[in-house]
Amino acid sequence: MGVDFTVFKGSSSGAIVEAKGHRDPKPSEVIVKISHCGVCGTDEHYRHADQGLGHEGVGVITEVGSSVHEISEFKVGDKVGMGWFHKFCGHCDSCVKGKVAKNCKGRQDRCVNMTTFGTADQDQGCFGTYVAWDVSALFKVPDEIPLEYAGPLMCGGATVWGPLYTSGLGAGDRVGIIGIGGLGHLAIQFASKMGLEAVVFSSTESKKQAAFDFGASEFHVTNGSEDLSTIQKLDVLLITANTNPDLSQYLSLLAPGAKVFPLTISTEEFHVSPLTLIMRGTSIIGSGLASIPSVRAMLSFAAKKGIKPQIEKFPMTQSGVEEAMQKLRDGKMRYRGVLVVE
Amino acid sequence: MGVDFTVFKGSSSGAIVEAKGHRDPKPSEVIVKISHCGVCGTDEHYRHADQGLGHEGVGVITEVGSSVHEISEFKVGDKVGMGWFHKFCGHCDSCVKGKVAKNCKGRQDRCVNMTTFGTADQDQGCFGTYVAWDVSALFKVPDEIPLEYAGPLMCGGATVWGPLYTSGLGAGDRVGIIGIGGLGHLAIQFASKMGLEAVVFSSTESKKQAAFDFGASEFHVTNGSEDLSTIQKLDVLLITANTNPDLSQYLSLLAPGAKVFPLTISTEEFHVSPLTLIMRGTSIIGSGLASIPSVRAMLSFAAKKGIKPQIEKFPMTQSGVEEAMQKLRDGKMRYRGVLVVE
Repeated sequence: MGVDFTVFKGSSSGAIVEAKGHRDPKPSEVIVKISHCGVCGTDEHYRHADQGLGHEGVGVITEVGSSVHEISEFKVGDKVGMGWFHKFCGHCDSCVKGKVAKNCKGRQDRCVNMTTFGTADQDQGCFGTYVAWDVSALFKVPDEIPLEYAGPLMCGGATVWGPLYTSGLGAGDRVGIIGIGGLGHLAIQFASKMGLEAVVFSSTESKKQAAFDFGASEFHVTNGSEDLSTIQKLDVLLITANTNPDLSQYLSLLAPGAKVFPLTISTEEFHVSPLTLIMRGTSIIGSGLASIPSVRAMLSFAAKKGIKPQIEKFPMTQSGVEEAMQKLRDGKMRYRGVLVVE
Repeated sequence: MGVDFTVFKGSSSGAIVEAKGHRDPKPSEVIVKISHCGVCGTDEHYRHADQGLGHEGVGVITEVGSSVHEISEFKVGDKVGMGWFHKFCGHCDSCVKGKVAKNCKGRQDRCVNMTTFGTADQDQGCFGTYVAWDVSALFKVPDEIPLEYAGPLMCGGATVWGPLYTSGLGAGDRVGIIGIGGLGHLAIQFASKMGLEAVVFSSTESKKQAAFDFGASEFHVTNGSEDLSTIQKLDVLLITANTNPDLSQYLSLLAPGAKVFPLTISTEEFHVSPLTLIMRGTSIIGSGLASIPSVRAMLSFAAKKGIKPQIEKFPMTQSGVEEAMQKLRDGKMRYRGVLVVE
């Protein structure tokens, strides 16, 4: 069987290009008819590349590869989300020495030659109609979560969940969240529902009510009008703003032993001295892909606690992709764009 | 009773000043007759301050405070090392909420108002003859370790031990060590004896043989003559050089999920982008004081494995302190200076 698909890709000029093709499922793959895909800031990084865009895709399985019944419980009709996970090479030192299994602790990231599912295929992307997806990177979407809300959880949700879930935080611990956007508005909800204090920092007052509606415990304006030095110290700091904040402004707000997670993919460098880190035992942690068990836990938690992104819908068409990406680029999305296959 | 003591201090001009005083032990303190004290780069930071220098002191207990027998097993005649540990305030949010106990995991660093033992007292310093020391920050020196070798373990040893002991490393894991000095030459020995691969980086070939003698598995020159890109990836990287290396040169040598520890106290900033950290899940971790259990484990391990610093001795006099600090400043110490009370 297989399926004819459409995908929206970047191009050297930055224009969104529509491409078409045919895909047959490999033995361990399923064909997914995409229903929705969230629009993430990271898509912007690939807008000038010959690469299928979209990595917050969800949809329904329409066909399964020859081995899928043996290696998984996925079946035609399942609502699923597409994850992006590292695949081990199996022959590098880390793989051979078995460190992946020993040290992964839920993070599958020790293989030196690891590849990321999907991205090796330039036509694979969830801005489109159908994908073929390996079941090892596929997630069942809980029935409680409508598919239009599930998309943004696959990347945005997983990105903010990872640090909150794995940092050893306890009830009442204080999580600083810089920026209220696609990531930040989910971070506030997750932190709040996890029993943590969501301490939100924003450059203006404009999103203050929204922050409290999402569950913020505190809201602080960082335009200089407020004295931040008196706030109670933070145990974790998530940086979700579009641009790097001045880190030195925040390091003094941290409790000893605090962890800082720069979550926005940015090549803009931040500057920090060893002395500053050593004095308070601060860590700066690069946290990319959440692990498979972690994403499962995130979807389950979101379903039980009713966590969902606030979305704006656009049609899954060339102009719809362009309009959504432009709105995100302009900083006007409230708070996550979702492309809908009609 | 109490004791008359001499201490060598910094001064605004940078000259070493001798001061004298009398000290009676508080109920939880002992009087220690200092026999040796290591000379650490951090002393240099206090050379221009009115502050007693020396934080790698060891000696013998000559007197105990009124409560010491009830709260500890220390007694007159014990060989001890002076630790520098945080003391909790007991009334800040972290202390009151009990987070110190819950989260410390051997690191006592959650109290916001914590003070460091000793440093509040400008005349307390182990470049001198006697100190009064709280038993909660005191360590018994194992009989196998001669006191002249024990001094440098109290700060230098503890500093390199902490990351190696607490990072979840396993046998055969690869530890990059930048710099072969007071810290580096101990890091090589500890890593090697812990069953790790000590992968040493130095700017010249001059310390190559010494590195292998200390237990290095590999030695790499960083002056550009060697292609570093082909070496097997590192799981942990300890920065022990006097000056910060160009971090970008090393980040590409790291395995996914690797941890970087800048151990040299430096205000010189390093620059790093979120993208770089996120792509490989790299963490940069400020690791200051090792915990009390960790230092005990370090001393026990050093005793059993015969780990000891390579030292150069100087007399515990004003000119001895100046000569030792000058030699360290000139980068000519091989590898740790020790002041000896004669």
